[in-house]
Amino acid sequence: MSSTVITNIATLVTNDPSLGRGSPLGLIQDAAVVVDGDRIAWTGESSKAPATDNRVDAGGRAVLPGFVDSHSHLVFAGDRTQEFNARMSGRAYSAGGIRTTVAATRAASDAELEANLTRYLAEALRQGTTTFETKSGYGLTVEDEARALRLAARHTDEVTYLGAHIVPPDFAEDPAGYVALVTGEMLDACAPHARWIDVFCEKGAFDGDQARTILTAGRAKGLHPRIHANQLSYGPCVQLAVELDAASADHCTHLTDEDVDALANSSTVATLLPGAEFSTRADWPNARRLLDAGVTVALSTDCNPGSSFTSSVPFCIALAVRDMGMTPDEAVWSATAGGARALRRTDIGHLTPGARADLTLLDAPSHVHLSYRPGVPLVAGVWRRGVREI
Amino acid sequence: MSSTVITNIATLVTNDPSLGRGSPLGLIQDAAVVVDGDRIAWTGESSKAPATDNRVDAGGRAVLPGFVDSHSHLVFAGDRTQEFNARMSGRAYSAGGIRTTVAATRAASDAELEANLTRYLAEALRQGTTTFETKSGYGLTVEDEARALRLAARHTDEVTYLGAHIVPPDFAEDPAGYVALVTGEMLDACAPHARWIDVFCEKGAFDGDQARTILTAGRAKGLHPRIHANQLSYGPCVQLAVELDAASADHCTHLTDEDVDALANSSTVATLLPGAEFSTRADWPNARRLLDAGVTVALSTDCNPGSSFTSSVPFCIALAVRDMGMTPDEAVWSATAGGARALRRTDIGHLTPGARADLTLLDAPSHVHLSYRPGVPLVAGVWRRGVREI
Ligand SMILES: [Zn+2]
Ligand SMILES: [Zn+2]
Repeated sequence: MSSTVITNIATLVTNDPSLGRGSPLGLIQDAAVVVDGDRIAWTGESSKAPATDNRVDAGGRAVLPGFVDSHSHLVFAGDRTQEFNARMSGRAYSAGGIRTTVAATRAASDAELEANLTRYLAEALRQGTTTFETKSGYGLTVEDEARALRLAARHTDEVTYLGAHIVPPDFAEDPAGYVALVTGEMLDACAPHARWIDVFCEKGAFDGDQARTILTAGRAKGLHPRIHANQLSYGPCVQLAVELDAASADHCTHLTDEDVDALANSSTVATLLPGAEFSTRADWPNARRLLDAGVTVALSTDCNPGSSFTSSVPFCIALAVRDMGMTPDEAVWSATAGGARALRRTDIGHLTPGARADLTLLDAPSHVHLSYRPGVPLVAGVWRRGVREI
Repeated sequence: MSSTVITNIATLVTNDPSLGRGSPLGLIQDAAVVVDGDRIAWTGESSKAPATDNRVDAGGRAVLPGFVDSHSHLVFAGDRTQEFNARMSGRAYSAGGIRTTVAATRAASDAELEANLTRYLAEALRQGTTTFETKSGYGLTVEDEARALRLAARHTDEVTYLGAHIVPPDFAEDPAGYVALVTGEMLDACAPHARWIDVFCEKGAFDGDQARTILTAGRAKGLHPRIHANQLSYGPCVQLAVELDAASADHCTHLTDEDVDALANSSTVATLLPGAEFSTRADWPNARRLLDAGVTVALSTDCNPGSSFTSSVPFCIALAVRDMGMTPDEAVWSATAGGARALRRTDIGHLTPGARADLTLLDAPSHVHLSYRPGVPLVAGVWRRGVREI
């Protein structure tokens, strides 16, 4: 097992709160990191770095933990370019919606779905993402949901069963029958391949009672809950997430004071997904309100072909700073340590001895440049489990 | 002189209006382009492409004209990370502003300035920009302005003298004296290195009368005017731009109906710079209003270390669609053909026979993906003057 020291790091983001100094990021200036196998072995000032087998010069640039993208929908086929184009051009477009992607996904071969998935994962890696969660939800049959999860599980440990994405057209007249399927035969087929269960809890999708039924059933099969909650409207979903100790309530765009209080007094993370508000011209979630109340906030892409077709965590960081009231430091924390909390992981999202050696090197002297230089591809290097990939 | 055909292009953006079909982009599906030396020799359907020496398979992806970034400020030293961080974190920050960059730029060596410039040009090229304009304006002495233009002219034909960026601290008590310098000795030293003259026409910088004096003096020395106009407030600057037949009025954020009418009845382009509104949390310019009135609109980055430190034209396209009322097609036109109009160039910004062979290949099947996939680095290939650079 060889060791490598990365030296000459202008700014190192460790997310170690014990380093203090007014930032949650545990910043070290003129820093070095030692990687031993797939783990972080040491961090500190560059001048004090121990000798190692290999040496990488960061060239006065910044290093931070790899991004943890805790919310994506990457098992799909087709795209929805025409629907997007019509929406942004103010033209009517009759087809479209999740059903379009469901039809394309059902029609695709395993190989096509996996090629698409690995393509977007490679794209995300080039942008600094070293851990990602991804969901089913475009199959909506027993076979197609199980297939999606099986394919996803080849590429990540963070796999989420989202049979309850929408009620599919074949069950339009019998939503209760679909809930029974999702909590019965489909759950049985899917649970072995997933860690998480999710519900799109929203008017027009699944209501609070249905969501409770579905998540409770999943929990009984060993899956842990997370919820698409309060994206498009107010509702019971955020408080349901807290009630069920969901790891995360995702979107959180429409929140009452009671919702915010519930989150603040829970271990449920609020995961904000500004790519969705960007690409649908919707109102932004108010991250400042959540942070000021003491809620733990994560930032993720929601990458999917309908409402947020970005795989770029840096882009989401820039939006969070511009439009959601986050400071540049808070946004970087939420996209690394916050994402890890949303996945209840303690081994990622920080660079302290013993953590997984997932690191991103920026072509910039500080992490602030992720929002200061919006849209610019700043990722110059990525290590995953101690292996340099980019 | 060898010829190359690029085949298997899913969507080719030519910007040839004669191709019609409801888009200003002159789209050809299943297309090919023939490049002969540094020029476009042929465009059309892939099946009809003539034989050539070399063949490149675009793999079912999109090709468009290289972006024309007609407004940037890239001759500078230092950065303003702390100022940006304080502004976005709601903290007071006493230093900062253009003066900080002026001090750093004056203190830098020629080699440092040129290394910085070429670094940002390479970054822009990787994002598909094949033509860029850049300005002086961080020297504000005879020697430092002339030096900036001399360095810029090594890298682009589109060099702009912006001695009238701000009144420098050394002339704080004598702004008229500074205008005399800008129109006298400084102009004499700068005119040989520049094509354009620009003024920051704004409350706190130069008023309409000063701007007229400066631009008129520049015109007498063979420079053509362009103006930073109506960025922060209403004022006479857009109408001055039209009066002087400026190639472009840049920013155009605060416009009266009279301003819009004047632009519509002129050959002055309105260049919108959404990176500035993004990074200063300012209100967006209304592109829809301009387009509906018949104004020619360009989109550019305004790349500079103070108010818009992005070099990404794709990012500006995504913002223009989301927040300025442009359709995906209009935004792509404005970032290519629009930029060319703002520089009064007929050889770039389109892909028709005889045009310069500046092309961008996207890792996506259509140009719409530039806004559909915001923040994602989609540029997979760049040809400049017929030479593949990326
Ligand atoms: Zn989602
Ligand atoms: Zn400018």
